[in-house]
Amino acid sequence: MGDPRGASAGPTGIVVLGTGQMGCAIARLVVERPGLELVGAWARRPERAGLELGEAVGLGRPLGLAVESDLPGLLERARPRVAIQTTCSRVAEAEPEITRCLERGIHVVSIAEEMAWPEATSPEAADRLDRLARAHGAALLGTGVNPGFVLDLLVVTLSGACARVDSITATRVNDLSPYGPTVLRSQGVGLTPEGFEAGLESGEVVGHLGFRQSIAMIAAALGWEIERIEESREPIVAAEPRETPFVRVEPGRVAGCLHSAFAWRDGRRAISLIHPQQVCPEAAGVATRDTLEIAGDPPLRLTSHPEIPGGRATVALAVNAVPRVLAAAPGLRHGTELPPPAAMLGPRG
Amino acid sequence: MGDPRGASAGPTGIVVLGTGQMGCAIARLVVERPGLELVGAWARRPERAGLELGEAVGLGRPLGLAVESDLPGLLERARPRVAIQTTCSRVAEAEPEITRCLERGIHVVSIAEEMAWPEATSPEAADRLDRLARAHGAALLGTGVNPGFVLDLLVVTLSGACARVDSITATRVNDLSPYGPTVLRSQGVGLTPEGFEAGLESGEVVGHLGFRQSIAMIAAALGWEIERIEESREPIVAAEPRETPFVRVEPGRVAGCLHSAFAWRDGRRAISLIHPQQVCPEAAGVATRDTLEIAGDPPLRLTSHPEIPGGRATVALAVNAVPRVLAAAPGLRHGTELPPPAAMLGPRG
Repeated sequence: MGDPRGASAGPTGIVVLGTGQMGCAIARLVVERPGLELVGAWARRPERAGLELGEAVGLGRPLGLAVESDLPGLLERARPRVAIQTTCSRVAEAEPEITRCLERGIHVVSIAEEMAWPEATSPEAADRLDRLARAHGAALLGTGVNPGFVLDLLVVTLSGACARVDSITATRVNDLSPYGPTVLRSQGVGLTPEGFEAGLESGEVVGHLGFRQSIAMIAAALGWEIERIEESREPIVAAEPRETPFVRVEPGRVAGCLHSAFAWRDGRRAISLIHPQQVCPEAAGVATRDTLEIAGDPPLRLTSHPEIPGGRATVALAVNAVPRVLAAAPGLRHGTELPPPAAMLGPRG
Repeated sequence: MGDPRGASAGPTGIVVLGTGQMGCAIARLVVERPGLELVGAWARRPERAGLELGEAVGLGRPLGLAVESDLPGLLERARPRVAIQTTCSRVAEAEPEITRCLERGIHVVSIAEEMAWPEATSPEAADRLDRLARAHGAALLGTGVNPGFVLDLLVVTLSGACARVDSITATRVNDLSPYGPTVLRSQGVGLTPEGFEAGLESGEVVGHLGFRQSIAMIAAALGWEIERIEESREPIVAAEPRETPFVRVEPGRVAGCLHSAFAWRDGRRAISLIHPQQVCPEAAGVATRDTLEIAGDPPLRLTSHPEIPGGRATVALAVNAVPRVLAAAPGLRHGTELPPPAAMLGPRG
């Protein structure tokens, strides 16, 4: 009957790895949360070192700490219980930083997309991280809004009410308008349709990163063996001008990428994940939303209008994961193995 | 990284306690599920003893087993690993049966509404059951669609994407048309408005059973202290004739009960659970649905049209809980402490 939340004596020390938009928002939420204490932040770029931490993360007041660029030194001095890793998307890039934490027995929450199910792309790295975490009594969890929540954990949870699942279709329609040039480039925004095709070829147009992780999470929870995964990336061509602070898309140009993934089981599509990402969808009369559908017994359908907002939800999921990794068994953990990701708010939260 | 599902060598033996509508449907699903084996069913009523089990539960084929009314004898002979208890709604009534199982080290899944959070009504019984379960290495879990899923576990899971939760409003609008006289009486269906008030006084009109359990689950997950809970039960008076196989409601008579519960925290309503239950809501232009709303950062809203169907979902949740109790630490467990209630289907599920 024990509730692990809020059980420790003093505040839980947290370091944030990365001072980009996500890292800063996570750091601010850590500062706000009773029971948590921001004890440091690490920046990859040496030129960020020495900045006042509270100012650097946009808190608007000093914290009496400086951003550091020497990770082992920071971990030695700050002695956090948990590190929240926000610097990158790929396991290969995240592994060295996560390793520095785990080898000191520091739990890790990662928002790197591939870390939501690292075995999907990097089984050997996942195995190394799992063994390292176990050896040092630390837990490691990847989370985030997608992958990690909307198109996988929520779908799995909903399936709990099903006696039979024939197939799953989950659709997330979002708006890229708040995002800057890096994200827009990865979705081909502003390109000609021919430029979009060339970008797919060259690897500059990526689409969504997370389908393989979401499919692996759903399949593991349902005990499904997936035969193959097909993906498609189609340009969303604007029929009308669309404009954001970062880009103006003329009619005939690409407003975004319709990226879909289909997982096959027993010779038919068992999981369909559909994620059109574009700027100003409302210009084309498209409403943003999440739709989770299970064909089965009973058939179920959950919707969110508008979609669950990506940035804010990822920040919350990362911070709400802290009590879960503290209470988890050591090793590489997955969202579907731990208690549901409740908001941990505390008496004054 | 271990996945507890499907890890055992042979099938998991299950007994079902109760051969009412829910017990029979659960028994049938146990028979269908790979990895589970129905090894017996217990009926409270001695006149059910000796019925062929497969026929008694509506499977349409014999199972070579008989319904039994001697619970200790059944447990000794059948040696199940898990008992699914379906006979009643109240902790006080469920405790003796659950005790018989736990004292033999048999895990228990209960769909008794009060067992979703037994401390809410029966803290002493909850403590006895927790200690008994721990002493015998067994886990005990209450589950069901409501309480246990729609108005609590799904809300808690959704809150994981929130940095701040100001208040929660969850509404479930369902249709009582499939239900028989016992359920209809408990909601006052067919009464005059005066008769409804008298039924509330006498205790014959009950409304929904589960608000206290759902509120306790949400509050525990969010670390909220609840100051008080207010409930209201209002008659839903038909303006038009409504008819089901079990009842005809004339205009001016009661079609159901609008039951709501409000939990107060820091002097304001923090949790509002609203559950109008009536026959033929569509006759009044009312669509059945579930709506889960969180006011906070970010604000979130999930809906299901129609509502998640109560009976089928409870059957599924009970059977899907089996791998969770097998993998759980001994003792009284709660849905929010265990991994999300995924459908456990297996390679051929």
